[in-house]
Amino acid sequence: MSELERRIDQGTGREPADIVLKNGRFFDLVTGELVASDIAICGDTVVGTSGSYSGKREIDISGKIVVPGFIDTHLHIESSLVTPHEFDRCVLPYGVTTVICDPHEIANVLGTEGIEFFLASALETIMDIRVQLSSCVPATHLETAGADLPIEKLLPYRNHPKVIGLAEFMNFPGVVYKDPVCMAKLEAFQGSHIDGHAPLLSGNDLNGYLSAGIRTDHECTSAAEAMEKIRKGMHILVREGSVSKDLHALMPILTERLSPFLALCTDDRNPLDIAEQGHLDYLIRTAIAHGVDPLAIYRAASISAARAFGLRDRGLVAPGWRADLVIIDSLENCKAETVFAAGREVTHSLFGTRKPVAPVGLASVKARTVKAADFGVPATEGETSVIGVLPGKIITEHRRFRLPVDGNQTTVDFERDILKVAVIERHGKNGNHANGFVQGFGLKRGAIASTVGHDSHNICVVGANDEDMAIAANRLSDINGGFVVVQDGKVTGEIALPVAGLMSLEPYEAVRDTLHHLRQAAFALGATLEEPFLQLAFLPLPVIPHLKISDRGLVDVDKFMLIG
Amino acid sequence: MSELERRIDQGTGREPADIVLKNGRFFDLVTGELVASDIAICGDTVVGTSGSYSGKREIDISGKIVVPGFIDTHLHIESSLVTPHEFDRCVLPYGVTTVICDPHEIANVLGTEGIEFFLASALETIMDIRVQLSSCVPATHLETAGADLPIEKLLPYRNHPKVIGLAEFMNFPGVVYKDPVCMAKLEAFQGSHIDGHAPLLSGNDLNGYLSAGIRTDHECTSAAEAMEKIRKGMHILVREGSVSKDLHALMPILTERLSPFLALCTDDRNPLDIAEQGHLDYLIRTAIAHGVDPLAIYRAASISAARAFGLRDRGLVAPGWRADLVIIDSLENCKAETVFAAGREVTHSLFGTRKPVAPVGLASVKARTVKAADFGVPATEGETSVIGVLPGKIITEHRRFRLPVDGNQTTVDFERDILKVAVIERHGKNGNHANGFVQGFGLKRGAIASTVGHDSHNICVVGANDEDMAIAANRLSDINGGFVVVQDGKVTGEIALPVAGLMSLEPYEAVRDTLHHLRQAAFALGATLEEPFLQLAFLPLPVIPHLKISDRGLVDVDKFMLIG
Repeated sequence: MSELERRIDQGTGREPADIVLKNGRFFDLVTGELVASDIAICGDTVVGTSGSYSGKREIDISGKIVVPGFIDTHLHIESSLVTPHEFDRCVLPYGVTTVICDPHEIANVLGTEGIEFFLASALETIMDIRVQLSSCVPATHLETAGADLPIEKLLPYRNHPKVIGLAEFMNFPGVVYKDPVCMAKLEAFQGSHIDGHAPLLSGNDLNGYLSAGIRTDHECTSAAEAMEKIRKGMHILVREGSVSKDLHALMPILTERLSPFLALCTDDRNPLDIAEQGHLDYLIRTAIAHGVDPLAIYRAASISAARAFGLRDRGLVAPGWRADLVIIDSLENCKAETVFAAGREVTHSLFGTRKPVAPVGLASVKARTVKAADFGVPATEGETSVIGVLPGKIITEHRRFRLPVDGNQTTVDFERDILKVAVIERHGKNGNHANGFVQGFGLKRGAIASTVGHDSHNICVVGANDEDMAIAANRLSDINGGFVVVQDGKVTGEIALPVAGLMSLEPYEAVRDTLHHLRQAAFALGATLEEPFLQLAFLPLPVIPHLKISDRGLVDVDKFMLIG
Repeated sequence: MSELERRIDQGTGREPADIVLKNGRFFDLVTGELVASDIAICGDTVVGTSGSYSGKREIDISGKIVVPGFIDTHLHIESSLVTPHEFDRCVLPYGVTTVICDPHEIANVLGTEGIEFFLASALETIMDIRVQLSSCVPATHLETAGADLPIEKLLPYRNHPKVIGLAEFMNFPGVVYKDPVCMAKLEAFQGSHIDGHAPLLSGNDLNGYLSAGIRTDHECTSAAEAMEKIRKGMHILVREGSVSKDLHALMPILTERLSPFLALCTDDRNPLDIAEQGHLDYLIRTAIAHGVDPLAIYRAASISAARAFGLRDRGLVAPGWRADLVIIDSLENCKAETVFAAGREVTHSLFGTRKPVAPVGLASVKARTVKAADFGVPATEGETSVIGVLPGKIITEHRRFRLPVDGNQTTVDFERDILKVAVIERHGKNGNHANGFVQGFGLKRGAIASTVGHDSHNICVVGANDEDMAIAANRLSDINGGFVVVQDGKVTGEIALPVAGLMSLEPYEAVRDTLHHLRQAAFALGATLEEPFLQLAFLPLPVIPHLKISDRGLVDVDKFMLIG
């Protein structure tokens, strides 16, 4: 008997359903009602609601509420620092049954080999991982990436069953000014989903960007910005990651009226935050605690997200819809007690049924060995540009200071919290090394370094002295990438991320514990930012205003050019 | 320069837009605001809103409101009695820029030849005609159709650019009871859109039906029915046709909350009603006049309809969206003054640019000649089943009466308004002829007959005497199909519908005038129904409860069987 026939037999109640959730209520995201009902499941599909069913297996969920599985509409799994398999095991139990990821980080290091690793993983994971094809590799001409993905290299993946169009088109100047490489990609994906990324873009420039067929944006940092974009037909993905936290600013738009045009995303969220706060469930309960209408936020978390990305089989608890279900204690708490992913109860043993996927990029850190002298900055007259870091934001400020001079060298200035920052090319391409200054990290000694440095993932180092910066950078080559803390000439904390210099081979629990230690080691240097490594990782990102640093030098993002 | 580059140049305002609508406001269906704004159009796409633009052509629309083009989510163009080209010319000026049609009528007469005629027409029309593949040809085993479309004959059309999945799956018992022919069609279209048709289906039977992946329904005749379906995840298409008028009954569900899950449709609407009342604009203004929130009804008319059917390029007035625009005087009046279809202003001369498509099925009426004696019904003891017609509804009642007898014949009963009804097979297959009785037409003399008789389109005759019934039926063969009125042995009104016996070759204005005359001729017989020919056409439809008549005899729809 076919699955279709089984579903009909079980939906009509002629045959017992595979699973029946009994005595609970589901949250109807159409009407806003809590509906007391059995929920019958056949295979991967809900086949009965608002009725009474008997099942081969019956689960009593008295007092509980069933909501549709949550959909993270934009994230980089790499930012969890674990492989897709570990991400699946870590995040699915929070009720996140679908994620739409952009393998932008691994693609910038490994190119198509990285995309294929994600697609192969997506075919194995229990959660439904959908992959958008990274649209901007390299992200810009202002940096050195490990790979180049022109349209010819993306096209073979366009019709893969796990692929949803083109990922965040972050090179918005390239769109607005009709860069030919951008045009070729946009042309090829007209009619498919093209995800956006346009922080602070507005007015007619935004109109030009949207005229290219771009429909979603996760970069709104204020309600006013979101309202302009939503009025112009964009579906707004409200983001709350480990660095970029926009949920509070965007709460004014989380209304029932706008809810059909909203979704949620995490973009970048690390295992510590996931363990301490949760994932999309955290966004939901935080929003409700701040007065957001539950109907609005649960719609954004599922049905509206599904519609935005053309996932027409999910987002409601209803017959014929995918059985992605989260059983929670209350709408307000949103604590996932049991999760069903396409009808399968999420358990420890379920994850054991997945085939492993061989890791890739295990020797991707090809930086030259550096010396303390490489971090020297010659003394200059007048003011120097300094990257102003804002806690919890990836947007930076372009600040100007007259910096102290020691002999022929410009030096750090602890009183004003101005440290050195360096980016070192690590893909074995040109050995570039750029130095600059950054304000806001709080370090009084030592250095921190990382091979996670958006989007080209060169080595990025922030330090109080040149010797520790060199030690930290060189240590990253020894461990094939990761995060390192150096204090007084010694490594005092580290985590190896040997998969493309981005992801660990360890279980997420081990990564979480190591990260906790690492953060303590950074705090011991005087670090004041809550997430020093995440903020470090965004210093090189030249598609986010205003001042950034790549392996080629300081980047004025507003002018989209190198300035030194 | 590519269209994409032109759009970006014009959207950013670097180049003048092809067309700019100046000094008006648009109705933002996301926020519910009336936004004062220029609207810039490049080619077929809106490229600028909420800004100031200059254009190669500028149109002053001071005091006017722009709304997205309306989408009729379910209709049979055949019911307009004109060809798709004439339908386009007739209905597009009302602001209906997209229709999703089911060529079910012509497919039941001509099979794939009829579908191909529609697809060829759809490639030429100015409005965007989308075609769903007729799922139930023949509709049931209880009647004789002109064609048979098993899944093998539908598959070649599945990926046609104008095709959207499978049309209204009206054989709901076939779904619920797993008829193998139905199962094959449903299997083949899993993952595509499968349109529903399930009047009064509820409870676990409805769940079984939905478990087959069916997602839309236009057959709700009460708010209670609609609420059950909407709670079970169906997108409800609120229908107001010439016969089936559900708008008033469904007004309680036309709320802002439910609006993301609603759409509008006409199903069957004739040129007289279109001329006198309008098309979807009539539904909109009627709903608003009865207190429906404009945001709810305009959403249902465009963006929510588009989303239900996966038309992701239309439904909002926003940059990057299809320039299907209706300029109206006010939200309440909804009087279309100017219409843009994919950026083209709808004018008389625009229709002249379409290539004609050769008509098909010009000799499709192959009925045998009948005599008055063929309409005789032998006298019986006890009660006789009578079809009870309800004005303005396609649902009928199953009534039982003791009928008068004249000699060995059961006869009509003018006092209780019970007339004879007959259905005569006309596809040249078997010469079937079935007689019965019907209550509610009001005729005191003569007969009316039609080759439009859902869904098999055999000849259907209602009459006060057998002689006039025979004359009317035979006349239909002479004119290759149409509607005929006979009084006292003479044809007093007729319209020829030689395209498959369903559509005229005349311009819609001529059809409208002829229909007006025809209706007068029917009223002269005593007809009391507002639309006698439309109600006649639904008497043979055995998928609508409760009692119907096909060429094989009376059909008890509740039992889904022939009863005499």
